[in-house]
Amino acid sequence: MEREEKFTELLRINVDQNCLHQCQSCYKYFDCPDPYKYSIYQQGRMDIIKGKMKGIRYKLAVLSGKGGVGKSTVSANLAMALVQRGQKTGIIDSDFHGPSIPKILGLQGKKLMIGKEGILPVPGPLGIKVVSTGFLMDDNESLTWFDEFKRGALEEFLASVQFGPLDYLVLDLPPGTGAETLNMMKYIPDLTGVIVVTIPSELSQGVARRGVTICQKAKVPIIGIIENMSGFVCPDCGKKANIFQTGGGENLAQAMGVPFLGCIPLDERISQTADNGTPFILQYPDSVSAKTFHSIIEKII
Amino acid sequence: MEREEKFTELLRINVDQNCLHQCQSCYKYFDCPDPYKYSIYQQGRMDIIKGKMKGIRYKLAVLSGKGGVGKSTVSANLAMALVQRGQKTGIIDSDFHGPSIPKILGLQGKKLMIGKEGILPVPGPLGIKVVSTGFLMDDNESLTWFDEFKRGALEEFLASVQFGPLDYLVLDLPPGTGAETLNMMKYIPDLTGVIVVTIPSELSQGVARRGVTICQKAKVPIIGIIENMSGFVCPDCGKKANIFQTGGGENLAQAMGVPFLGCIPLDERISQTADNGTPFILQYPDSVSAKTFHSIIEKII
Repeated sequence: MEREEKFTELLRINVDQNCLHQCQSCYKYFDCPDPYKYSIYQQGRMDIIKGKMKGIRYKLAVLSGKGGVGKSTVSANLAMALVQRGQKTGIIDSDFHGPSIPKILGLQGKKLMIGKEGILPVPGPLGIKVVSTGFLMDDNESLTWFDEFKRGALEEFLASVQFGPLDYLVLDLPPGTGAETLNMMKYIPDLTGVIVVTIPSELSQGVARRGVTICQKAKVPIIGIIENMSGFVCPDCGKKANIFQTGGGENLAQAMGVPFLGCIPLDERISQTADNGTPFILQYPDSVSAKTFHSIIEKII
Repeated sequence: MEREEKFTELLRINVDQNCLHQCQSCYKYFDCPDPYKYSIYQQGRMDIIKGKMKGIRYKLAVLSGKGGVGKSTVSANLAMALVQRGQKTGIIDSDFHGPSIPKILGLQGKKLMIGKEGILPVPGPLGIKVVSTGFLMDDNESLTWFDEFKRGALEEFLASVQFGPLDYLVLDLPPGTGAETLNMMKYIPDLTGVIVVTIPSELSQGVARRGVTICQKAKVPIIGIIENMSGFVCPDCGKKANIFQTGGGENLAQAMGVPFLGCIPLDERISQTADNGTPFILQYPDSVSAKTFHSIIEKII
């Protein structure tokens, strides 16, 4: 037993002794008491980003511990629900590996334009302002964007985008709770709060819990948890099947002491509309899922 | 048009001019012609890993472009199908953010032991040898493992594990096609081939395609593509619903010129068994999914 612990301990000590002050990629960033953890360079860049985003009233980040839980679909539909309520809204898709917001909103192949004051977001359905790493890459691009490069590109990108005045900005975070997600949370100043998306199964709760804990460490308020892919109602016989179990989101919300925002059921039309590029909430406004998106947005507003 | 391209181009040139020979985190690793891209240190570590793994006949890596497509479930069940066929099999779970193999195989809370010649894998169902980053972390651990640290830990980990002689080693790669996935592919010497897991929807094919392209760049043979979550048969009325669309895996296989291995349907018992820690293929040997896992393994062998 002693020997096992020693191994883990050894790894940690190794890291402590080798502090190179690479704060931007340090896993102890939020815990670290070092007053020099911000470099002057980073602070300068942060000030630019802050300046560019000062006209945005509320900034909501959407996080998922595990990938493939429908984070981008939820982000896009929540953003569209805000637009439908007359809120001027923008969305940032920060997934370098598989940016899916352009496809979900029917904007594939569009490119970012450069205006006088920086990069201009691409206008999407009902005037939503969209920024995605997908607009920087070709569809067939097979680059593996590595960490240093991604970090540089992301900072440069955020410091250059001119959203103009907005009521809401929805930030679709990269999947996982790694450096990329954390850096996004560091780069966007004055986050209003984080929405955590999970699927019901117990297996995915461990990762979602880690996501909640990271927000708490970063002192970012958690708006609440959404349970996506929550049961499937057979369109033929009406019987419900809990394909990915049930109750995980609500249990997690209770355990972590954060609000539970609602359940969005599995619906084959969600995947269809994402593939067709028509926002689901616009095409099927009377579906259970669309109504749930709207009720969640009501709670958030 | 010219201005847009300039921006992307600028980012690239920036990287070229600033080459710090950090080959381990470079996104151009497989394209780079620099003869010094391996450091002596890395080569030494690689030799140790090679030595430790020399008794393993076949090494299969399981990759998914997108997260949440069931990569770990597929890895665990394929590995168990190999064990059931009398093959001495090991499995490596290399996901630092949400290691799920311990839970799927009912080994949660187990710890790695240190033997005379290194770290010993945890014995799982029917004697499968399991190594997981989950055995190094507590369930509630909220560490965000950052890149440099992860890289060091993973190398140290792989160089220390003593599998002994095996017929098959199944490598459950981290989700995505980022640095972590690529590093794993670099660390494991003489990979027999890669199995790509995808879900049917068109949205997820872009990322899966990127995964296939990376393997081709890395000159690792692709064994084939598995389509997971492929339709749901209502247990009540027997009617099939294509919740995540249909045909994506087969289309991708055709487009990329690689074999298609089979479709695994959605089945609520898969998520149930994963949460209970009983391998699905052992508990429901007569299910369509279990039979598909066996037929895939037959093709692979």
